[in-house]
Amino acid sequence: MTPDVGARVWVVPGGHIPFPGSGEEPQFTGFDQLCVLNATPTDADVEFDLYYEDAEPVGPYRITVAARRIRHVRLNDLIDPEAVRLDRPYGCLLRSPVPVVVQFLRQDTRLPGALALATTMAYPA
Amino acid sequence: MTPDVGARVWVVPGGHIPFPGSGEEPQFTGFDQLCVLNATPTDADVEFDLYYEDAEPVGPYRITVAARRIRHVRLNDLIDPEAVRLDRPYGCLLRSPVPVVVQFLRQDTRLPGALALATTMAYPA
Amino acid sequence: MTPDVGARVWVVPGGHIPFPGSGEEPQFTGFDQLCVLNATPTDADVEFDLYYEDAEPVGPYRITVAARRIRHVRLNDLIDPEAVRLDRPYGCLLRSPVPVVVQFLRQDTRLPGALALATTMAYPA
Amino acid sequence: MTPDVGARVWVVPGGHIPFPGSGEEPQFTGFDQLCVLNATPTDADVEFDLYYEDAEPVGPYRITVAARRIRHVRLNDLIDPEAVRLDRPYGCLLRSPVPVVVQFLRQDTRLPGALALATTMAYPA
Repeated sequence: MTPDVGARVWVVPGGHIPFPGSGEEPQFTGFDQLCVLNATPTDADVEFDLYYEDAEPVGPYRITVAARRIRHVRLNDLIDPEAVRLDRPYGCLLRSPVPVVVQFLRQDTRLPGALALATTMAYPA
Repeated sequence: MTPDVGARVWVVPGGHIPFPGSGEEPQFTGFDQLCVLNATPTDADVEFDLYYEDAEPVGPYRITVAARRIRHVRLNDLIDPEAVRLDRPYGCLLRSPVPVVVQFLRQDTRLPGALALATTMAYPA
Repeated sequence: MTPDVGARVWVVPGGHIPFPGSGEEPQFTGFDQLCVLNATPTDADVEFDLYYEDAEPVGPYRITVAARRIRHVRLNDLIDPEAVRLDRPYGCLLRSPVPVVVQFLRQDTRLPGALALATTMAYPA
Repeated sequence: MTPDVGARVWVVPGGHIPFPGSGEEPQFTGFDQLCVLNATPTDADVEFDLYYEDAEPVGPYRITVAARRIRHVRLNDLIDPEAVRLDRPYGCLLRSPVPVVVQFLRQDTRLPGALALATTMAYPA
């Protein structure tokens, strides 16, 4: 039996979708990604808000991470309640009704012929 | 005397073995890696399951990390119970009978002439 | 209602602003960055000191992170109480009167045509 | 007054000094680095052992991090009790008599014209 693992609130302060990208899409599109693992037997209706330097938080964005599943979500792909503007600093605060684990990943392809990756666990609050 | 250090459950939500790679193998193969340190005086028979977006978890994968040893395991190299498909999002939940410490590392060489690395401690549950 | 999330003291031991950079400014300038998220309803007057290998700590540097806002601050841009010397190892200890979350990001463009990123959550003390 | 911050035991499972490097030394040498911040008023005589896949741990390596100072130490530069072999997987377990904070950083320049960085906080045990 797998115990419930993780936390219900996670934070990523350092969001910033690189723009423009270079190379073939979608593999070499620049992106920020949230990677969520739900090891529980319950589907997780996850919500998160995006925080900005110069405007009120926007949200909630909603994604479902099914029981015993993962989801890797590119922030670039979200359009509801509004698209995330490229090349704009933001942060993310995520809430889940069940414990999950959240990792942040960036792929930066702004420079033709170069590739940069960066990752960190989100902060469990 | 070294105290037992670490945790018995670790999680990496953001797995995704880059494919294809470029450059000489095995140094420049793209890979995802689990790095495990066992500082205890007891061999650790570590097990982990891989979680997917669209299928039941697969596992357990088994590796032994001897007492007072490390193991760096490329996910690409695992074949039992089944090979990890390249370029497919996954997550990993690892269990150890004794406390260990787990770090995640990715090397991405999809773009010829470029090299990307990313690392983070796994999440201790 | 969003609970207060985070910690009041954060540490980054591994600062080192890459120098020189290559490519267009400011997008491809090399930098070290602190990314701070303040989810509380109170403005945060954040202070931090920089620690060196061979000199007394310098500080406090002060930035305000408004209520329900983020700030992404390039260390390169700070001049008060003194500019941060490029290509010099340093560490950072940050204090906030309210809980915040802090992420560290480096962009390295010293090598023309190459791009490196690295990120980690700061250590919450 | 700055409170003592950090922990007395830190672990990095994923060591592996990249080899060979390309580009000018020492800026573009490949390296693994431990970055230690000692915010206390007491000098820290830090010790660490290196763990391997196929041999007993080697140590202690000793470095002093003065009161209110940082140290960034390239593992490549250590020779006592023995030099760290390049291109060999290892892990690191560090002990300090006073609380410190430890970050791990890798620079990889094996591929000419490319640059990769990866960083993570060490695991506080």
